[in-house]
Amino acid sequence: MSGLSKSSVIAKPDGNAIVWCEGAFDAPSGKTAHGLVRRTARYKVLAVIDEHLAGCDAGELLDKKPNGIRVVRYLSAALGGARAAGLAVTHFVIGLAPDGGRLPKNGRGAVLDAIERGLHVDSGLHDFLTEDPEISDTARHAGITLRDVRKPPPRDQLHFFSGKINEVGAVRIAVLGTDSAVGKRTTAWMLVDALEAAGITARLVGTGQTAWLQGVKHGLVLDSLINDFVAGEIEHATWSAWRDGKPAAIVLEGQGSLMNPAYPGGAELLAASRARCVVMQHAPARKEYDGFPGFAMDPLEKQIAAVEAVSRAKVVAVTLSHENMALTDVPAACADITKRTGLPACDVLIEGAGKVVEALRPFLENKV
Amino acid sequence: MSGLSKSSVIAKPDGNAIVWCEGAFDAPSGKTAHGLVRRTARYKVLAVIDEHLAGCDAGELLDKKPNGIRVVRYLSAALGGARAAGLAVTHFVIGLAPDGGRLPKNGRGAVLDAIERGLHVDSGLHDFLTEDPEISDTARHAGITLRDVRKPPPRDQLHFFSGKINEVGAVRIAVLGTDSAVGKRTTAWMLVDALEAAGITARLVGTGQTAWLQGVKHGLVLDSLINDFVAGEIEHATWSAWRDGKPAAIVLEGQGSLMNPAYPGGAELLAASRARCVVMQHAPARKEYDGFPGFAMDPLEKQIAAVEAVSRAKVVAVTLSHENMALTDVPAACADITKRTGLPACDVLIEGAGKVVEALRPFLENKV
Repeated sequence: MSGLSKSSVIAKPDGNAIVWCEGAFDAPSGKTAHGLVRRTARYKVLAVIDEHLAGCDAGELLDKKPNGIRVVRYLSAALGGARAAGLAVTHFVIGLAPDGGRLPKNGRGAVLDAIERGLHVDSGLHDFLTEDPEISDTARHAGITLRDVRKPPPRDQLHFFSGKINEVGAVRIAVLGTDSAVGKRTTAWMLVDALEAAGITARLVGTGQTAWLQGVKHGLVLDSLINDFVAGEIEHATWSAWRDGKPAAIVLEGQGSLMNPAYPGGAELLAASRARCVVMQHAPARKEYDGFPGFAMDPLEKQIAAVEAVSRAKVVAVTLSHENMALTDVPAACADITKRTGLPACDVLIEGAGKVVEALRPFLENKV
Repeated sequence: MSGLSKSSVIAKPDGNAIVWCEGAFDAPSGKTAHGLVRRTARYKVLAVIDEHLAGCDAGELLDKKPNGIRVVRYLSAALGGARAAGLAVTHFVIGLAPDGGRLPKNGRGAVLDAIERGLHVDSGLHDFLTEDPEISDTARHAGITLRDVRKPPPRDQLHFFSGKINEVGAVRIAVLGTDSAVGKRTTAWMLVDALEAAGITARLVGTGQTAWLQGVKHGLVLDSLINDFVAGEIEHATWSAWRDGKPAAIVLEGQGSLMNPAYPGGAELLAASRARCVVMQHAPARKEYDGFPGFAMDPLEKQIAAVEAVSRAKVVAVTLSHENMALTDVPAACADITKRTGLPACDVLIEGAGKVVEALRPFLENKV
């Protein structure tokens, strides 16, 4: 976990975790594991389970930056490694986010095995572990805690929109994207890091189950909310982030994309947070909406215009995902985006988010 | 019930109903009752309960068009009237839609009284009758059915977006609005009527609890859905309406409004239905978002531009709500809208939706 954004995360980890990502650590559906390997304050991640990549370093595989988290074949290997290092494993975390959010067939056995070995289990799937009779019975008898991060909270814990967003003095910056699964969350974290590195106090508002698993202090799990509470929960999380130390900036993680047929999102985040600035995450090599062949992605320029048309926000920068691109092509792709949109563009995984901070500065200094 | 749109509604009513709207039949929070008095295929509505308006004709109060539905003081009076007319009452329907969707204090007594008198109870509130121990116990002992229309359906009955929307041959027309509670549903029904009167087969897709109570055959209750299923349920309802007789047009009822801070809505409907046309419902006399003083409504022109920016749809007409206006001022207000937007404008409650049908014709005839 980077120390920079530590004011955005919980103060103390829940424990030491093994992340289960069988068959998917090198696929988009492993994105929850990717988030956890990159950073989390909720656990110390000791190992990732994915048999066919066993022996590799997870950080090396993901970002070509070794981080000491080993990919292992089985849970027993992960536990053995931890024991050898003198560490007690406390949590087993499902690192898979397959389309539809179902627990894969081999997942039930893996979860039951983890419970029998005394590990608490956290899951962001749509298939709730707490509603699986065998899993929940086994856990109860073993004194194990199951947490279904995507389970809708009880209604009496939810907020309707009240208007208290107007009390928030921080500049709200929404990190939206031109598609789902395009890198919004990673960019949002790196933007918080970069703001804090520049001496600008910032908080993240997480909106997905992965941000929760990463230990974000303020947030909601947008796609698991009853629709009527979406605006109120966005407002409440933003307001809570403001109350927590009165930061100069609040960065909101976007979900889906504005014109995405399957995961339309963004308008609610802009409307309820009253965001002033938007950073647009975009993968130039992607031609169709993620998972929906035949549904051509709307062009970047149209999507930028759409964001500005539905809100009072200004798109200030484009952040690029180099998915399916040669790294050597990134500078030209950024230059092309700048030429087409008039906006600064950068790949935050390569160069950090400093350019975005510069683009935000006039808004943060109240000069716009 | 108008006979025109009968292909959009269930074939047979559930029974004869009394609508409970105590203290609110002349207020915006009585909007569920208003919808039921105007039209429903789910019940034959025999009377409305609202003590301070007792003795009036509900249609006369609402639209200055008497419809034989009496407003009465108490349930006993309603039951007496029905008996005198030789009619058996079967249902007690909550006609209130207060902010937050809570059952008012005096509502519990009214519901318990109805159950004891042998009536089934239907409710579109957020406070679920089926989760109130006293109400649900009393109902069970009395053999009474409680239906909470806004209760989220079980996950295994819900649909994820699949892309089958591309099989739909009908032109999709979304009735959106510049605010919530502005008349979108009524306009949508009248548009279906007008299309069918013009010989154009049409189906409504309802998106709220009132449309369900009105007996719409295809629909969803958008604000009670888990967010992740919203796009898929819109797609499935639209696809089902298409399969049901291959209509030329499918009219979708909008919810909330695109830039509404508390009830942001519209982008998901456009994205998932792939709508081609939009009719925009607007109340010129409204200056702030419904229920949120201090939140100025975004101007009509900006909202029209926003709808077109976030979709591939064209706004083809503006339909006006004369809320807080003198009827004599309506023609000038329509002319002003046409001047500002270049779009035809009309008040469908005064003149029907014929003008909207004319504006849609080029799209329906595939000339655009």
